[in-house]
Amino acid sequence: MNDEKLVVFGVKDLPEVVPGDDVGELIASRVELNFGDVVVVTQKIVSKAEGRIVEIDTSDPEAKRNLAESEAVRVLRRRGELVITETRHGFICANSGVDLSNVGGGRAVLLPIDPDRSARRIRDVLLAKAHVAVGVIISDTFGRAWRRGLTDVAIGCAGIAGVVDLRGELDATGRSLVSTEVCVADEIAGAAELVMGKSSGIPVAVVRGVHPTWLRESSVRREIVRTPAEDLFR
Amino acid sequence: MNDEKLVVFGVKDLPEVVPGDDVGELIASRVELNFGDVVVVTQKIVSKAEGRIVEIDTSDPEAKRNLAESEAVRVLRRRGELVITETRHGFICANSGVDLSNVGGGRAVLLPIDPDRSARRIRDVLLAKAHVAVGVIISDTFGRAWRRGLTDVAIGCAGIAGVVDLRGELDATGRSLVSTEVCVADEIAGAAELVMGKSSGIPVAVVRGVHPTWLRESSVRREIVRTPAEDLFR
Repeated sequence: MNDEKLVVFGVKDLPEVVPGDDVGELIASRVELNFGDVVVVTQKIVSKAEGRIVEIDTSDPEAKRNLAESEAVRVLRRRGELVITETRHGFICANSGVDLSNVGGGRAVLLPIDPDRSARRIRDVLLAKAHVAVGVIISDTFGRAWRRGLTDVAIGCAGIAGVVDLRGELDATGRSLVSTEVCVADEIAGAAELVMGKSSGIPVAVVRGVHPTWLRESSVRREIVRTPAEDLFR
Repeated sequence: MNDEKLVVFGVKDLPEVVPGDDVGELIASRVELNFGDVVVVTQKIVSKAEGRIVEIDTSDPEAKRNLAESEAVRVLRRRGELVITETRHGFICANSGVDLSNVGGGRAVLLPIDPDRSARRIRDVLLAKAHVAVGVIISDTFGRAWRRGLTDVAIGCAGIAGVVDLRGELDATGRSLVSTEVCVADEIAGAAELVMGKSSGIPVAVVRGVHPTWLRESSVRREIVRTPAEDLFR
């Protein structure tokens, strides 16, 4: 950790994103990035830029449920209007990540087709425009088993580790750490959420000061998504 | 958010904690706190100070499993040496949170009896010694369903919200947000982990700049722990 200090701040004055926008360019023009910064971008503006918007009668619960199920490969649980699904990406989340808030009536925003690729594209633009190597995380707000409240997690990443493996490093007493694989990408996404809020209209935040060894090629899909075979709660 | 910026830093030079130590005093003597700071303390030093240490033959897998199960009210899953349990506090985690690393051979550290109370005690000492109102979170490193890697979450809190309810607030397009209860305590615990690491021996971090409205009386047990009846994955 550089100086063992982390600074998290929002990127202000981003315009309303519309299909075809280049999110990387919008970010590069509004914030001065340092080497090793991690840029956290909320899924919704990425999806909007990629045109992942569909028309829907938002007053019709069945239409909403059908849309969520059409984005799923599996339905895990139903309770009232809530449906917990597994998406094509392997994410377990409510309503397949389909989002009706902050969109405007009659429309819903779907998850990006390949959020890791979305992250790489933004990272490449930032490298080309800002001439600085940064990490990029696409974040979304998911619920969890066993604990109330939502937290932001990484659904795509590039240039910043998903999971950091501390297994085998010695702890302070010289014992080997048996199992300490830390999902730093989710912790970084959550830290970014603390400055973005849900209603404040800040869809991008910068996390400055992560450990330099975490800056590497990466993938949420390969590193973080559990396969059904290894998952005990599906 | 003050200035929409969050700063996270570790508290250095804390001594090895032993039973009977006053963790609040140790912290107060080593860091200058501001009003509204959130002090994140890893479970292990709180448990050690509270004497939650037991003798165990760490070379015996069965002894470890028996200890984990004796700390549980329910076993949810077993796979090899791993046992996922529900603790008396209602936490779902591996091995009932029993920790064999960073302790020294032949001993294991158990979770605090009442981590919310542990957090309140530390908060009260910080108020008395540093004369400043802060939030306190006791954190631990838990696995999750569906996603690889561990993240730090709150197991106890005082003076800082567990879950912030944004339901009913209007989003940027004037639609009402249907369900946005954010577990800021877990996001703050995760942010702190990013500076603490597992092997660096920094068991306390300060998160500076959280939203002032989050500074209120709170409880992980009441706000974050899902009851079995409302949980879909147990």
